[in-house]
Amino acid sequence: MTGTGTGTRTGTGKVCLIGAGPGAVDLMTLRAVEMLKSADAVVFDRLVSPEILALAPAGARMVPVGKAPKCHTVPQDRINEILHELACDGLTVARLKGGDPLIFGRGSEEAGYLAARGIAVDYAPGITAAQGMAASTGVPLTHRGLATGVRYVTGHRARDARLDLDWQSLASEDTTLVIYMGAANIAEIALNLMRAGLPGSLPVLAVAHVTTPREARHISRLDRIGTDMAERPMPAPVLFVLGHVVSLYQSAPLPLDLPQVMAGE
Amino acid sequence: MTGTGTGTRTGTGKVCLIGAGPGAVDLMTLRAVEMLKSADAVVFDRLVSPEILALAPAGARMVPVGKAPKCHTVPQDRINEILHELACDGLTVARLKGGDPLIFGRGSEEAGYLAARGIAVDYAPGITAAQGMAASTGVPLTHRGLATGVRYVTGHRARDARLDLDWQSLASEDTTLVIYMGAANIAEIALNLMRAGLPGSLPVLAVAHVTTPREARHISRLDRIGTDMAERPMPAPVLFVLGHVVSLYQSAPLPLDLPQVMAGE
Ligand SMILES: C[S@@+](CC[C@H](N)C(=O)[O-])C[C@H]1O[C@@H](n2cnc3c(N)ncnc32)[C@H](O)[C@@H]1O
Ligand SMILES: C[S@@+](CC[C@H](N)C(=O)[O-])C[C@H]1O[C@@H](n2cnc3c(N)ncnc32)[C@H](O)[C@@H]1O
Repeated sequence: MTGTGTGTRTGTGKVCLIGAGPGAVDLMTLRAVEMLKSADAVVFDRLVSPEILALAPAGARMVPVGKAPKCHTVPQDRINEILHELACDGLTVARLKGGDPLIFGRGSEEAGYLAARGIAVDYAPGITAAQGMAASTGVPLTHRGLATGVRYVTGHRARDARLDLDWQSLASEDTTLVIYMGAANIAEIALNLMRAGLPGSLPVLAVAHVTTPREARHISRLDRIGTDMAERPMPAPVLFVLGHVVSLYQSAPLPLDLPQVMAGE
Repeated sequence: MTGTGTGTRTGTGKVCLIGAGPGAVDLMTLRAVEMLKSADAVVFDRLVSPEILALAPAGARMVPVGKAPKCHTVPQDRINEILHELACDGLTVARLKGGDPLIFGRGSEEAGYLAARGIAVDYAPGITAAQGMAASTGVPLTHRGLATGVRYVTGHRARDARLDLDWQSLASEDTTLVIYMGAANIAEIALNLMRAGLPGSLPVLAVAHVTTPREARHISRLDRIGTDMAERPMPAPVLFVLGHVVSLYQSAPLPLDLPQVMAGE
């Protein structure tokens, strides 16, 4: 089987699904920057920073589509249509998403919609928030003797739906557990994980706005993180890291020239 | 608490732990390229491609340290010492690793060794192999209705040790399972996962040299992948993706202008 490449047809544009990374501009990949710089239109989420948007060509059409929890945002169906319409107009569309487009980014839903309509889709992966946390704090995602693997889960459920994670499977002490979109439900998540067998003393690291000048960090433990966040919530976006790798935090270097806000310390 | 930044002391160098990404040069981050370009010495693993090494300054000292399975390689203790010695010589050392340095990269072991000896460590995260697979094939790591999370595990155990993964926890059908370093044990892994409850029909994607011109892909299922790989092994490095997201492969675009070798098709 031979690949067709991007196969842009005459008159039809294409869509580049681009990971913008966790925040810092220099955590974008070369491919992501290249694709953004050659875009005619940029359709972007709220998590993408102004410094990154500034890389788009001066004449590019800039289309914000929101995606903040509890704020007015463009529904996914409409985002799909916007991408399709722009590509049909013959434009090269940069679809910019925070982190990696294929990790909790709905990138594959957009790609599927477009592919079904004959629109070519290209990808630029991005550093996901968990990797930004690791690079910024020195807390690794895996480490011999502390974590034989890492797992990313979402702590968010669609409106009214129950948080029905597989707690038994998640309560695996030798796996680093990273919770995306977990701020609203972290107390419930921690409780369920303890019921399923994880020790209350398991170290937890919460980071907000990681890799940006607004980065904040908070060190806690499984039996305290719920109360901590209720008493002093961190500004969204927040990522939670649960596992023994967090114990490496104290001895780890602080690699960024950023103010280190240690909430609750 | 205020961060000290990189805090290079006069006369002492520092070590930059750099993720080179899965292979393609343009999947490096801007920060990784920047750090590599300002290195006095480059200590690199075998997985790092020549095109990436070519980004190092002409005068930089190039130090290969191996890390191919079953080949002669520099032991980890010695790598730690080399990094320490170079930094003590006042050099800025680029420690280049495939993928992300803090995912199955032993980057945190090196960082811990150096930090304990007062050497400053900086990080540049990298696109990990799983993300390279996703961007190259269009198979997402998470997808509404198919995978609520993703998990990276290692299929490799130290010489003579048993493969003692937590099979019950791993047999979670709504989580994409990505197996690093699994080529030697994939038959045993698949068997254990089926015993723990995963269906034999679960789709599996194996990729080799993903994002490079030597990229190869093979689509299979849990009850066949062991036999498939025994009959037609793929060249290392190989990554396995297990889960329903793999079912999106057929309809997904092939984004790279690469020969698409579909082994066993
Ligand atoms: C809809 S998900 C998008 C994830 C993104 N595709 C990625 O790969 O990082 C949004 C969640 O990602 C996490 N997140 C993204 N950027 C972050 C950052 N800079 N700091 C902390 N958490 C972040 C938060 O948990 C947030 O709720
Ligand atoms: C020692 S681990 C290093 C992982 C690396 N730190 C990362 O984040 O991708 C080596 C394993 O990564 C996977 N791998 C790395 N690069 C790959 C590539 N280009 N194609 C397929 N698998 C790859 C393979 O499973 C290989 O056995």
